[in-house]
Amino acid sequence: MSLIGKQPMAGGQIRQSIQGLPQSAIREIANASMGRDDVLPFWFGESDLPTPAFIREAAKAALDAGHTFYGPNLGLESLREALAVYASGLHGSVGRERIVVTSSGLSALMLAGQLLIDPGDRVVLVTPAWPNVPAISRLLGAAVQEVPLTLEEGPAGANWQLDTDNLLQALTPQTRVLIVNSPSNPTGWVMPVEQQRLVLEHCRQRGIWIISDEVYERLVFTAEGEGGGPTVAKSAPSFLDISEENDLLVVVNSFSKAWLMTGWRLGWLTVPPSVTPQLGKLIEFNTSCVPGFIQQAGLAAVQRGEPVIGEFVQRLRSARDLLHGALIGLPGVTAPLPTAGMYVFFRIQGMTDSLAFCKGLVREVGLGLAPGGAFSKAGEGCLRWCFAGAPERLQEGVERLRRLL
Amino acid sequence: MSLIGKQPMAGGQIRQSIQGLPQSAIREIANASMGRDDVLPFWFGESDLPTPAFIREAAKAALDAGHTFYGPNLGLESLREALAVYASGLHGSVGRERIVVTSSGLSALMLAGQLLIDPGDRVVLVTPAWPNVPAISRLLGAAVQEVPLTLEEGPAGANWQLDTDNLLQALTPQTRVLIVNSPSNPTGWVMPVEQQRLVLEHCRQRGIWIISDEVYERLVFTAEGEGGGPTVAKSAPSFLDISEENDLLVVVNSFSKAWLMTGWRLGWLTVPPSVTPQLGKLIEFNTSCVPGFIQQAGLAAVQRGEPVIGEFVQRLRSARDLLHGALIGLPGVTAPLPTAGMYVFFRIQGMTDSLAFCKGLVREVGLGLAPGGAFSKAGEGCLRWCFAGAPERLQEGVERLRRLL
Repeated sequence: MSLIGKQPMAGGQIRQSIQGLPQSAIREIANASMGRDDVLPFWFGESDLPTPAFIREAAKAALDAGHTFYGPNLGLESLREALAVYASGLHGSVGRERIVVTSSGLSALMLAGQLLIDPGDRVVLVTPAWPNVPAISRLLGAAVQEVPLTLEEGPAGANWQLDTDNLLQALTPQTRVLIVNSPSNPTGWVMPVEQQRLVLEHCRQRGIWIISDEVYERLVFTAEGEGGGPTVAKSAPSFLDISEENDLLVVVNSFSKAWLMTGWRLGWLTVPPSVTPQLGKLIEFNTSCVPGFIQQAGLAAVQRGEPVIGEFVQRLRSARDLLHGALIGLPGVTAPLPTAGMYVFFRIQGMTDSLAFCKGLVREVGLGLAPGGAFSKAGEGCLRWCFAGAPERLQEGVERLRRLL
Repeated sequence: MSLIGKQPMAGGQIRQSIQGLPQSAIREIANASMGRDDVLPFWFGESDLPTPAFIREAAKAALDAGHTFYGPNLGLESLREALAVYASGLHGSVGRERIVVTSSGLSALMLAGQLLIDPGDRVVLVTPAWPNVPAISRLLGAAVQEVPLTLEEGPAGANWQLDTDNLLQALTPQTRVLIVNSPSNPTGWVMPVEQQRLVLEHCRQRGIWIISDEVYERLVFTAEGEGGGPTVAKSAPSFLDISEENDLLVVVNSFSKAWLMTGWRLGWLTVPPSVTPQLGKLIEFNTSCVPGFIQQAGLAAVQRGEPVIGEFVQRLRSARDLLHGALIGLPGVTAPLPTAGMYVFFRIQGMTDSLAFCKGLVREVGLGLAPGGAFSKAGEGCLRWCFAGAPERLQEGVERLRRLL
């Protein structure tokens, strides 16, 4: 006996807004390859290396010590302190009272949304963007206006750019929140500090909140704003560099990318001090706290993980150069060189249905990429390739793409 | 420069509904004892024993094996299968396709709410109830109607009862969801199977969803419905015992209580099969997945944890008898004997402000209890005492209460 779908009352259905949420197109591609072991997957934003051993050992030691009880909503004081020291080293003074530990960067984004977005609120989003970001906004009832980057062709190659005037025009006094992700997933675009200043000042004057997703801040390949040389920058420009602690600014961060901890679900927020207790309430109703032994692993990562980041960035840079160099040699491909992140987001001439194209890639040549259309209309016609993998696999992947083209 | 609170624009504030959310009164009591090491705390619903070693070892082995990557939204297939087998053993056939692994029982409640509750929806809640349940409903914009248990005095002592007619009258066709928690935190009340049948049939006819929070189902001290003898029942009556798989039923469960895993943040939902993919989408936007090594620990608990539950229930039963026996000897105390759970929820004659009373308890005699008013108006005048602790500590706690009374 099925009541669902046969019920005369609307009560028998789940919420319409949930039914209407699209399934992740990236997962749709991944599902299309189920049961095939000949597919090379580059669709997720994840390294193929497990978390470094010393971080795993820290979790194991905490488990041995019996750290299996409830913890504080805002996170362990030791981890909050360590993150404050870490952020202060990168961006100038950030107090511990501004740090809130969360169950992933994704959970941090959801909490920021719950904190700020009422049904009907207007949210401005720079796109292409990770699909979960607009999905969270819509789940909370927001009307999302997209401000797209454009792919500009210059003498030194193509690159993604954001027109400042376009963005500022969209940020009206009726706007509740601007959400921006720099370095960007999927494009690798980095918002220059001068643009950040203009946006912050504009938002200050209009009482618009900024949610800045900075989870890729450590994965940068040039010293942005310092001549663009080949040295490794410590971090991409952050809104934390130029803001006051009471600005209407929520910065999202994560352990996933810099410390190879995707599966741990550990992130943090940096917020104005007066907002911290409000987030404590929200965490109490969402997840209550992050497991203590996971936080102990995070503590080890923050305090002893700089060599990990350095090595990972070098590895990513080589992989990026290899992949980008190979892609720009393919016919009809426009591939901007990303200066940060772990993705090449490239256009294929004449390709207009990236989801169908990606399904074809899996079916015909066993290559798994993420369809650009998943990252908003502005991403349609493009593909996202995560290069956080071994060089020989990347090379084999390019060969497969060449076969199809 | 502070923009928050000085802003002329409404945009400078966080959401009013978040500002208006009450802080947890239980945490308020806990905070009142900060910096004092002479307080005996019984306010949280947590054993004083760490998670059994074999469960921790399973997590450590998974960490050693490098299980640190993203996992499926719905949980590991091995854990879903094990939970289906476990639930089938307790409640009759439950298919794996109905099981969804979540980042705690709390997260399961939040996901169930996100799945079903639109702003303005009418939610009926049996109270006294864990404060996070109405808070989640209100956070999602629901209008919550409470149906209170009553404390009845009988020849065999006092006990909490739910008037069936009261509940059914509240469950109008305009009701979206009924939320019921049996065995109940805080009262220990168990909904009899006959009452469950009436409620299920009534909700079926009206298209009302039931969210049944059954996280204490294994902590039962009498064979409910089989004469009330002293044998250990395998489980309290569950809506799973009497429902069809497509009923409008969402059952919330958790690893926290039965397997002493509070700090792990691991739970699960049992839902109609057609709802499972919808929950996959919601999890993608809330936490994405539960860490794989935590799920491996959960797998060990489900497959090898029955002796843990048996020993824990015996320990709880002794502690309950000790605490309850001592409390009913105190002047002005009405203490029903709980047949399940880990709390005695008792009334003190003449006490009308439980929050102030609990603060006084901490201040005057160093005793930490949870104020009944935190569990709804129906709980005011009462106190909640978690008895999942060592006997000598419980005895010392009762002495302290006696001193104040």
